[in-house]
Amino acid sequence: MTSLLVRRALPEDLEEIMALLAQDSMHYYEEPAAVSANQRAAFDEIDTDVNQDLLVGELDGQIVCTAQVTWMRMLAADGGLYCQVEAVRTDSAMRGHGIGALLMESIEGEARRRGAARIQLTSNKERTRAHTFYERLGYVASHVGMKKYL
Amino acid sequence: MTSLLVRRALPEDLEEIMALLAQDSMHYYEEPAAVSANQRAAFDEIDTDVNQDLLVGELDGQIVCTAQVTWMRMLAADGGLYCQVEAVRTDSAMRGHGIGALLMESIEGEARRRGAARIQLTSNKERTRAHTFYERLGYVASHVGMKKYL
Repeated sequence: MTSLLVRRALPEDLEEIMALLAQDSMHYYEEPAAVSANQRAAFDEIDTDVNQDLLVGELDGQIVCTAQVTWMRMLAADGGLYCQVEAVRTDSAMRGHGIGALLMESIEGEARRRGAARIQLTSNKERTRAHTFYERLGYVASHVGMKKYL
Repeated sequence: MTSLLVRRALPEDLEEIMALLAQDSMHYYEEPAAVSANQRAAFDEIDTDVNQDLLVGELDGQIVCTAQVTWMRMLAADGGLYCQVEAVRTDSAMRGHGIGALLMESIEGEARRRGAARIQLTSNKERTRAHTFYERLGYVASHVGMKKYL
C-alpha cells in the first residue's frame, strides 16, 4: 500500500469529506444534499482556529479518510493538553487496509509532539468493531460517553 | 438556597478551583502541591481562547463548583456546534443541594443561546451516581468514552 498522506483539509475537499460522513450508518443529523453555506462557514471557522484541525488522509491522490481534532488546554495534568478526536471516518470501500490506524497514528504523533497528556474520543455503543479497533491502538474504554441533543 | 452565580473564572480563583479538582476521588494525574506556573499559563491560554471557558459557580461569595467548556465547530449538523464539558466538580461538602444541576443548566442555557446541536461529556464508568445525575438532566449514555494516556 502506498503510504497515507495525512494533511489539513482544504476548502476544495469539502464535497469528499461530506461524502465520507454521509457513508456513516449512524445519522445523528439531517444533512443538506450538497455542501451548504453553513458548512463552508464552519470549515472557515475550524480552519482559522489554531485549536481545531480538520484532517484528511490521501491515498494516491484520493481522499480515503477524515477526522477532526480539537486541542483542549486543561488545569489538570499540571496545565496539560487533551487531544479530542471527532468524526473519524474511513471510506467503506477501503476498510481493512489499515488506513484508520495510520490516521490515528498520525494524530497521536502530533499529540505527542505537542506534549499532550491524553487523546480521547467517544464511539457509539453499537460500534463494537470500532471499540476493538481503538483498543488495539491502546485506547481504554474507561468512560461512559453522554450526549444531549438540543 | 441563594441562587448560584455561574461566571468565568478569574486568575485569583485558581487556588479554589485546584482545591475542588483535588477533592476528586479519581486522580488521573499527579498534580503540583500549589498552583504552578504551568497551570497559570494554562489558565491564560483558556481565558484568551473564545472557544474555551473555565467556569466557576459561586454561592454567597464562595466558589462551590467548576467546569470547563469547549466549543467545537463541526461540519456535521449542517456546520453545527458541539459543547464539550470537562472537569465538572462540586464541593464535596455541598453535595445534594442541586448545585451541579444549576451549573449544568447554566452551561446548557449558553449552548442553546449559541444554537449548539448538542452537549457532550464523558464520565468514568465507576461514577454510577454521576451517570444517574446526568441522565436526570436529559443526557443519554449512548457512547463509550475511550482515553489513551500519552
